[in-house]
Parts: sequence; structure tokens; C-alpha cells
Amino acid sequence: MEALGRHVLLELRDCNAVKLDDLPFLRHTMLNAAEETGATIIGEIFHQFAPQGVTGVVAIAESHLCIHTWPEFGYAAVDIFTCGAAFDPTEAAHLIVAAIESKDSEITEIIRGQLPVPSPVTGG
Amino acid sequence: MEALGRHVLLELRDCNAVKLDDLPFLRHTMLNAAEETGATIIGEIFHQFAPQGVTGVVAIAESHLCIHTWPEFGYAAVDIFTCGAAFDPTEAAHLIVAAIESKDSEITEIIRGQLPVPSPVTGG
Repeated sequence: MEALGRHVLLELRDCNAVKLDDLPFLRHTMLNAAEETGATIIGEIFHQFAPQGVTGVVAIAESHLCIHTWPEFGYAAVDIFTCGAAFDPTEAAHLIVAAIESKDSEITEIIRGQLPVPSPVTGG
Repeated sequence: MEALGRHVLLELRDCNAVKLDDLPFLRHTMLNAAEETGATIIGEIFHQFAPQGVTGVVAIAESHLCIHTWPEFGYAAVDIFTCGAAFDPTEAAHLIVAAIESKDSEITEIIRGQLPVPSPVTGG
């Protein structure tokens, strides 16, 4: 089996609620996590909700990083999808956990695109 | 326990390889899947890779939809994250599966943001 991607899901509880509602801070955190770990950013969208909460998606050449925050619950859902070996999603995950000061974090990695290795072409 | 979000992961194998490399088609498919199922689009990024493959991320008021395609393997990874009841991620998933003609699709739903219900405030 060959796997094309790694998808890291972060359940981040007991975070700093002020930071979870701070769009410029979260934007810097997500872009920095991508850049520091070697990803190539190709686009970004960040949106502030009223009365609170931020959504951010960062498209990278190696796939994506997303964050959705609920400051009222001290909770953020983050996911980091990567393909190739250039970018380590768990390293980016740890930078994000530290930045938003989650005291109760759960990191799950899911292998994506597990494809059967094609049979060798024998001609015909 | 209260759950804040639903995250639907699609492993789409044996797709139409031509469609997987067609950025305008995939952009229309993803935006249509969002709109048809009641999501509110707040931004989008689509990127064509060379020699092949497309990445698309759509930020919605209800969270996000992402697609990453590998036409050379007939494979696409899609994920749809939603919060609230206004938007049904499985309905959007079925529209995407049909559009890219996956003959071997696997849909997994993960509950995100399962938080303990806070104890009633009794004053103090």
C-alpha cells in the first residue's frame, strides 16, 4: 500500500480564550506554523465571526491547514493535511498547540489515500 | 457531552481522472455542493499543480470544504467540516462523489468538539 497524505486532526480544549478570538494572532500563528515547518503557502482566508470565533484556512502546496475556534468554550478544531515528505504536520501541530496555550490537546493522525500498489505493467 | 462540529472525510478512489485535473470543473463542483446544501461561502482558493492535480479550499460560515486530487491515481481526498444544523455535510459529500464519478468511495464522519457540559453555575 502507498499512502498519499497524512491528515492530522487537533482537538484543542482549555485554550487561551482571548487568543481564540484574535484574528491577526491566529493568522500569524497558522502562517508561521506553515512557514516554520517548510510548507509553501499558496493562499489564505481568515474570517471573524460575531459575536465571537474565527475561521482560518491556509492552502499550501502540500495541501492545507484549517482552524475553527469557539472562544466561548475555550476550544479550537485544527486540521493539517499534508502530502509528501517536505512538511511535517505534527511539527506544525505542536507550534499551534503552544501558541494558543491549549492545556488539553488531542492529536490524531489519519492516513489518507492508501492505494493499492498497481501491478507492474508487463506490456501487451 | 455537546458536539460542536461534524467532520466528514471522503476517500474517493477510481474517479474520472480528467475531471480530477479540471480546476474550473472542481471549483464549480465544490461551490455548488456548498450552495446546494445551504452553506454560506466566505472565501475560496483553488490551485492547479503541474504536471497535474488540483487543491481547493472553500471557507464557509459553517466551517470548510477541501479537496486535493491526484489524477494519476484516480484519487481525491475531500473533507467537509461543519458546525450547526444549517448545512448537512453528508448531502454535500454525495454531490461531490457523484460529480467526480468515484466508483469506490468511503465516507467517514468524525465528531469534533465533544465538550463536557459545564456544571450549572450555582453562584459564589
